[in-house]
Amino acid sequence: MQFHLNGFKAGDPDINSQPATKKNSISDSPLPQEVDVLIVGCGPAGLTLAAQLSAFKDIRTCIVDVKPGPLEKGQADGIACRTVEMFNAFGFAEKILREAYWVNETTFWKPDPNQPENIIRGGQIYDTEEGLSEFPHLILNQARVHDYYLQLMRNSPSHIEPFYSRRFKDLKIQATNQAKPLEARVVARFERANPELTGQIETVRAKFLVGCDGARSEVRKSIGRNLVGDSANQAWGVMDVLATTDFPDIRMKSLIQSAEQGSILIIPREGGYLVRIYVEMDKLGESERVTQQGLKVSDLIERANRVFHPYHLEVKDVVWWSVYEIGQRLTDKFDDVIQSQNTTRTPCVFIAGDACHTHSPKAGQGMNVSMGDAFNLGWKLAAVVRGLSPTSLLTTYSEERQAVAQRLIDFDREWSKIISSKPKFNADVKTDGYDPAKFQEYFVQSGRFTAGTAIEYSSSPLTKVNVNQHLAKGLRIGMRFHSSPVIRLSDGKPLHLGHVVLADGRWRIFAFAGQSDNGKIGHYSPIRSLCDFLQSSNQSPVRRYTNLNSDIDSVIDFRVIFQQSHRSLEISEMPNFLLPSKGKFGLTDYEKIFCPDLHNQVDIFDTRQIDRALGCMVIVRPDQYISAILKLDDFLGLRDFFEPLLIQQNKVI
Amino acid sequence: MQFHLNGFKAGDPDINSQPATKKNSISDSPLPQEVDVLIVGCGPAGLTLAAQLSAFKDIRTCIVDVKPGPLEKGQADGIACRTVEMFNAFGFAEKILREAYWVNETTFWKPDPNQPENIIRGGQIYDTEEGLSEFPHLILNQARVHDYYLQLMRNSPSHIEPFYSRRFKDLKIQATNQAKPLEARVVARFERANPELTGQIETVRAKFLVGCDGARSEVRKSIGRNLVGDSANQAWGVMDVLATTDFPDIRMKSLIQSAEQGSILIIPREGGYLVRIYVEMDKLGESERVTQQGLKVSDLIERANRVFHPYHLEVKDVVWWSVYEIGQRLTDKFDDVIQSQNTTRTPCVFIAGDACHTHSPKAGQGMNVSMGDAFNLGWKLAAVVRGLSPTSLLTTYSEERQAVAQRLIDFDREWSKIISSKPKFNADVKTDGYDPAKFQEYFVQSGRFTAGTAIEYSSSPLTKVNVNQHLAKGLRIGMRFHSSPVIRLSDGKPLHLGHVVLADGRWRIFAFAGQSDNGKIGHYSPIRSLCDFLQSSNQSPVRRYTNLNSDIDSVIDFRVIFQQSHRSLEISEMPNFLLPSKGKFGLTDYEKIFCPDLHNQVDIFDTRQIDRALGCMVIVRPDQYISAILKLDDFLGLRDFFEPLLIQQNKVI
Repeated sequence: MQFHLNGFKAGDPDINSQPATKKNSISDSPLPQEVDVLIVGCGPAGLTLAAQLSAFKDIRTCIVDVKPGPLEKGQADGIACRTVEMFNAFGFAEKILREAYWVNETTFWKPDPNQPENIIRGGQIYDTEEGLSEFPHLILNQARVHDYYLQLMRNSPSHIEPFYSRRFKDLKIQATNQAKPLEARVVARFERANPELTGQIETVRAKFLVGCDGARSEVRKSIGRNLVGDSANQAWGVMDVLATTDFPDIRMKSLIQSAEQGSILIIPREGGYLVRIYVEMDKLGESERVTQQGLKVSDLIERANRVFHPYHLEVKDVVWWSVYEIGQRLTDKFDDVIQSQNTTRTPCVFIAGDACHTHSPKAGQGMNVSMGDAFNLGWKLAAVVRGLSPTSLLTTYSEERQAVAQRLIDFDREWSKIISSKPKFNADVKTDGYDPAKFQEYFVQSGRFTAGTAIEYSSSPLTKVNVNQHLAKGLRIGMRFHSSPVIRLSDGKPLHLGHVVLADGRWRIFAFAGQSDNGKIGHYSPIRSLCDFLQSSNQSPVRRYTNLNSDIDSVIDFRVIFQQSHRSLEISEMPNFLLPSKGKFGLTDYEKIFCPDLHNQVDIFDTRQIDRALGCMVIVRPDQYISAILKLDDFLGLRDFFEPLLIQQNKVI
Repeated sequence: MQFHLNGFKAGDPDINSQPATKKNSISDSPLPQEVDVLIVGCGPAGLTLAAQLSAFKDIRTCIVDVKPGPLEKGQADGIACRTVEMFNAFGFAEKILREAYWVNETTFWKPDPNQPENIIRGGQIYDTEEGLSEFPHLILNQARVHDYYLQLMRNSPSHIEPFYSRRFKDLKIQATNQAKPLEARVVARFERANPELTGQIETVRAKFLVGCDGARSEVRKSIGRNLVGDSANQAWGVMDVLATTDFPDIRMKSLIQSAEQGSILIIPREGGYLVRIYVEMDKLGESERVTQQGLKVSDLIERANRVFHPYHLEVKDVVWWSVYEIGQRLTDKFDDVIQSQNTTRTPCVFIAGDACHTHSPKAGQGMNVSMGDAFNLGWKLAAVVRGLSPTSLLTTYSEERQAVAQRLIDFDREWSKIISSKPKFNADVKTDGYDPAKFQEYFVQSGRFTAGTAIEYSSSPLTKVNVNQHLAKGLRIGMRFHSSPVIRLSDGKPLHLGHVVLADGRWRIFAFAGQSDNGKIGHYSPIRSLCDFLQSSNQSPVRRYTNLNSDIDSVIDFRVIFQQSHRSLEISEMPNFLLPSKGKFGLTDYEKIFCPDLHNQVDIFDTRQIDRALGCMVIVRPDQYISAILKLDDFLGLRDFFEPLLIQQNKVI
């Protein structure tokens, strides 16, 4: 955390300033007439987007929801490692880590070959492969994730509070005025959803509208897109319960396949007692809907007990339950620009989350992919609204996220099929069933998928795939920046390099120094040459894209990692550019220079396979994905990379 | 964290329940007429005590302060490792760790032997020795520590808010009624301190009164005790500033000794920019007070620049500053019982923190020792008020903490002398000065003191020093339980064993199993025998001291650490006593059994040198100090240990 830059401020540094008056609920105020970004839906996607935008005081954001207030319980609960990395950028990973259940290991149960009516433990593995992320896979009530976002938004510079009880009605997009590409040309109408105000209509004009309004998204329909896919005709029940049991792995994530009674997935929950149980119910008829079956929670409990045999589950309290059918569906494009308009305009309406794709819950993907959508879109919208990037940046949202969703749906479809397939309880016997050993094997292979770390964007102006990858083999272009521990030179603090990437909309350049480079003047130092270029050249992207009135690192944040121990380098011999003056007092920012943790033998040059002789630059997007790897002396390559992505701020530099 | 035991509750698990009405300020309400514990002073000691007591709904606590509201800035800032361990028991260590400056390393500066008017770096060391604590030494504005306590109190079961603008006037102690030892017999009077209410008197009766009202404590005076000590006639200045400088170690804790201009101590502060600078000023005359010198902050800055030579400090903003003189003073006893009453009554008035002892600020001890006082007293008061322990327990407070304060003052006096002594700038030349190398050496030796981990209580009913110490050489009786990583059996979660010790007033027994013990029925298992004793014997302290209506672990919390890997033990084969039924639903608590982290080669049996053949029991007090080590089969020793400390709750068991 950095604060006190412009003077000491008492109180919580997470709270930028207290709103003048704390309203009990903002729902009674009318919607604003015009905003920059209008978000429909307070689910994980909508809140991630609003939280991202709330970091910018100069963006007017409005978020509405049809529900009367915040979510309290139920629904999604799996938080992938990658999502915790994102939460860390938002500043509340520690709180979530403290509160959530940690999925450390997964156990597999299968029919006992000797007594197939009984289940026995078939395996036990680490849930995520070692070193995949510095964070574990977590389970936490989705409502708590919402709470952290709401708190963040409330405490943010923009003090955003959702407007509840508003039903999205329709939208119109006014014709583009080429002279004013950033005009508010989306006109959306909402109907009050609280009984006493039913029928009242409010109209909001927005530069951009984002539909985060779920699988039945009205925003999606209003831009003429559909969720396309199929249903497996397989009913599942899900319940959050407090229960006693003699099943030994009730506090482990457990996949149970019985011989004849179907499958169960156990997901222990936060707090040490609560548990979520997914229960496979009967197959549905050809055009039957699960809601037609009239299932009660007692049916779920009864079925669960049949799968558990010889163990017994005694449910003491049902906190929440639901039934659903497995289905994977996807929209072809996540914005409002149709094929024929591809070259004539950029999008102004987007959809994110369940509005674009639905999954089966058991792979724990839905909430995570939805938040990933919004994190991808958020910084792009912010950059465009703030005049830092051209509107063309916005076309990359659908391109990148539609492909991610497609891959996840393919994975999910296969995974759902496997989990619902009848197991072979004896590998030696030829049956139609799925071999439990193979089941477990598939689970391990798919670990990176479920951890959310497998996402890889294709080649585009944002992603220079396959160029200079050999300079940093462990930092894969198109994938998220995989963090590793380092030591900060100025104060010797051990920290994770990736944790300097905050959700603040900034680009980062991590320059890894070559072996003998110590930054000193008069020595061979490509780092010093690069710093000189960035500081002084009129080709410097830092100079070109940063407003003269802003801190020098406010658009592109440049950091260096040396190979030497922090005790063998002198901060006084570092290039000035690495000790920038900031804020109204011109105070020095001392947090730009890092070294490997040689004392604990954790060397980021090893863990991320950086070319020790040459070093390299790694360009990281505001959403933590790696855009490009460049040679340290490729100044013009650096200039060219940012050329299509940022707008020059200073006429004369 | 554990919660949802008695049913799912939406919202933050740290918030037990929302107060019915949230008042803007409680200062306007009158003081309650009668309470169990009355705390005078909202400093670190008072707030630690109130926070501890706030955990118990059945204790009526009132805390008052003469100031009109919470502290905002200035004063103490050093948080010792040991104190972070205590914060962890209170549940806010993560938040503090995220927010505070980490003191990772300390640098030492001395006169340049070649140019003595200049300072040069003489050394750089780790601030705390490796493995001393799982937490670092931190620096954070004292006001933020207060905030966390206030938040905790507000969110606690008792919803405690301080009463501000009350000046303690006097107290009377009514004679003890032997039949009612817990009668409220302290009568205290307060005067309203806000101008519009000046002169109004409020009277509060309390069972116990604790003066946490600082060095000029009126409570101390009212029980006839004095702070005794001396002053070194050495003026110091201290300032929190935002500044620019070419001094390279401005983000490191740095001890600077100049040849002729005195010393400086640099303490970087939270947020990356703020820094605290202690500046040695001129010696005071024989009976001169520092306040008489009319020093201004510009004098401090000017002097600092002379010490810094050849570096320069340009102060941009002064956040807070003060001048003080070094003095170490101590009270002979921390309660109201005079020698002649030692055998006839137990104390009902206590003093804690600066009311008992004052230190020089630079050893970073004041706030930490004060909080340590209160943490020592808190659980004892709670146990007595709640009828769990006899009032004799309360005599141990002064015994234990007065000795601690004495040792710290001895250390502080020596340290202050060294830091103010003129350095030899050339070790070869014979001068009166102090050798900087020796200075650094002393600093390293005293590391355990400054980390707060050197505190060691002497032999008493609470502390069975030197008995069975060989069974766990790394867990020193009388010192704090030194945590080490383990794996929880039920869910494979890696965690710190010491972190299960929460500030909840419970005793803990950690039973370390012998080598072959796997807890199974029918096998040789001293752990199972011990569990059987604790569960079934009428000699069992757990049965004896726990009310039949309470959870079985509510007074004594029993946990076991096995030597095997968690994958080679079966939870279904563990003794019932290790899987207790709790709460209104009789849900199973799965968090009592631990294993070494063999996968990461962190074996608590090695790190804490547990006797692998025999194992042992380690009894840990509610304030994390180790009371005793017993052999696993010493059932009667266990019974006898608790005999003088707890009151039998059940007539027939």
